[in-house]
Amino acid sequence: MKIGIVGLGLIGGSLGIDFRSHNYTVLGVSRSLETCQTAIKIGAVDDATTDLEFVAQTDLIFICTPLDRIIPTLQQLIPYLRPTTIVTDVGSVKASIVYPCSQLWTNFVGGHPMAGTAGQGIADAQTKLFVNRPYVLTPIATIPPESVKILENVVRSIGANLFLCTPEAHDRSVAWISHLPVIVSASLIQACMSESDLGIRQLSQNLASSGFASTSRVGGGNPELGVLMAQYNQEALLRSLHQFQEHLNCLITDIKAENWTNLGQSLESTRRDRSLFVRMPQFNREIGNRVIFTLSFFLFCFCVASSIG
Amino acid sequence: MKIGIVGLGLIGGSLGIDFRSHNYTVLGVSRSLETCQTAIKIGAVDDATTDLEFVAQTDLIFICTPLDRIIPTLQQLIPYLRPTTIVTDVGSVKASIVYPCSQLWTNFVGGHPMAGTAGQGIADAQTKLFVNRPYVLTPIATIPPESVKILENVVRSIGANLFLCTPEAHDRSVAWISHLPVIVSASLIQACMSESDLGIRQLSQNLASSGFASTSRVGGGNPELGVLMAQYNQEALLRSLHQFQEHLNCLITDIKAENWTNLGQSLESTRRDRSLFVRMPQFNREIGNRVIFTLSFFLFCFCVASSIG
Repeated sequence: MKIGIVGLGLIGGSLGIDFRSHNYTVLGVSRSLETCQTAIKIGAVDDATTDLEFVAQTDLIFICTPLDRIIPTLQQLIPYLRPTTIVTDVGSVKASIVYPCSQLWTNFVGGHPMAGTAGQGIADAQTKLFVNRPYVLTPIATIPPESVKILENVVRSIGANLFLCTPEAHDRSVAWISHLPVIVSASLIQACMSESDLGIRQLSQNLASSGFASTSRVGGGNPELGVLMAQYNQEALLRSLHQFQEHLNCLITDIKAENWTNLGQSLESTRRDRSLFVRMPQFNREIGNRVIFTLSFFLFCFCVASSIG
Repeated sequence: MKIGIVGLGLIGGSLGIDFRSHNYTVLGVSRSLETCQTAIKIGAVDDATTDLEFVAQTDLIFICTPLDRIIPTLQQLIPYLRPTTIVTDVGSVKASIVYPCSQLWTNFVGGHPMAGTAGQGIADAQTKLFVNRPYVLTPIATIPPESVKILENVVRSIGANLFLCTPEAHDRSVAWISHLPVIVSASLIQACMSESDLGIRQLSQNLASSGFASTSRVGGGNPELGVLMAQYNQEALLRSLHQFQEHLNCLITDIKAENWTNLGQSLESTRRDRSLFVRMPQFNREIGNRVIFTLSFFLFCFCVASSIG
């Protein structure tokens, strides 16, 4: 099977590397000739050009552009597509992409590989980025089931954990665990910067440590991505934000009223509930690194000892 | 100089280990005999008992109990103290501790070593926990300057970065960067748990990844510590929470009004401003681990190659 990738950034490039390692032929398209050359050089594609027509003969096309370029890219692609070509995207919001795209192209299946790093470009593309990471597909009723099956198999081949749901369920879920945290975390940074006493603000900056670093991390992320997710997932995000405000208000009320029993019960439940969202793999990865490090060290010592002996 | 440590948990134990490595004699007191024995065994103290009188002959006493035990512990200590004995604490809130304690004991200097791990007990005590970490002292006008100097030197001896400020400045600073994040992060977890559609809540739990893990980390922490910091730093925390609400409201207004330019500018500034609070050491530590790991690996390969050759 031939796979086309339009948009050769971190996600497009990393998908390409993995697809090629599973013997798919991968043809890439980027607006930048330099990106095409890099993609060829690092083995993310078999070949790449700046011309959309280049992916016309592929069986499955991944649109890996930023959210606001997905619909225009599909529109430009359509003249070159064969009726059987399956098109998918990797956008982090689904309903506002999937319905317009499905009207343009029946064989469109929305997708969202939930893997990312701090990097963005083709130079950051890496192998096995999607292994054990969620990959959501959001097929709607009008899509031929066999197209979904083909895409499912390709997603599974790169080791991702496949989830199937409606575009709406996807959007509400990511509003909770991905988009709400960005706005909350950004508000935290803004609030800390609003301290009017410069000495105290400076002291806060000096005293901030891992707790602040963690809580503020996603609020210090890419502003363009933040705006796009708010734009494309506005309704679900606002819904989550209002729920957040209500819960925050309750905690503030308890603190004001010195209702420490209530506050304690709330913090007891958040400690318990967090584990429903944050599973072991991340922890395991950390432990894994330590184990590898320790083993390497002992093997090293052993080798030194035996070469001396 | 002889140092007394009352309360042999993570902080008390780790202080003891470092003080002893700098040739101070360290005498410990814990309510639990088992803890005393462990502290002696791991080298956190020269000797320890369950009797407060045991530290009577020391020159400098660190009260390392939980926040709500600091004032009662000082009250119980006073009958045994010589007038020259300096007493300090390690509580994470200062004004509500320092003023009552200074009235009880003129030679009291508030302190806050800002180092911690997930652990809490003597078993988690470790060497060099305070190296390059902030250690705040909050002397007030009534304290003999020479007492502060002595404590400053001891704090510097364990490699901590010393900061001097008023108890109020400390409390407002930690409200921003330590206590506000706990409440915000807890509200995030509560909000995500409030999703009434069980399928969507389950999907959120499956899709949550590093962004959610980071933002929710401190909200999933120790409930008792969370309640104590709210109790003892109520005023500064409420002030920070109200500022946070205002900034959150502004972002929500922009999202509602589809004022994407404003939202983009806000996220641009939070990206920039975060770097004022989050400095390089943490990043360096991660890089450092990778460098050590890579070097170990190459050394290992080299040794294997030379033992084969």
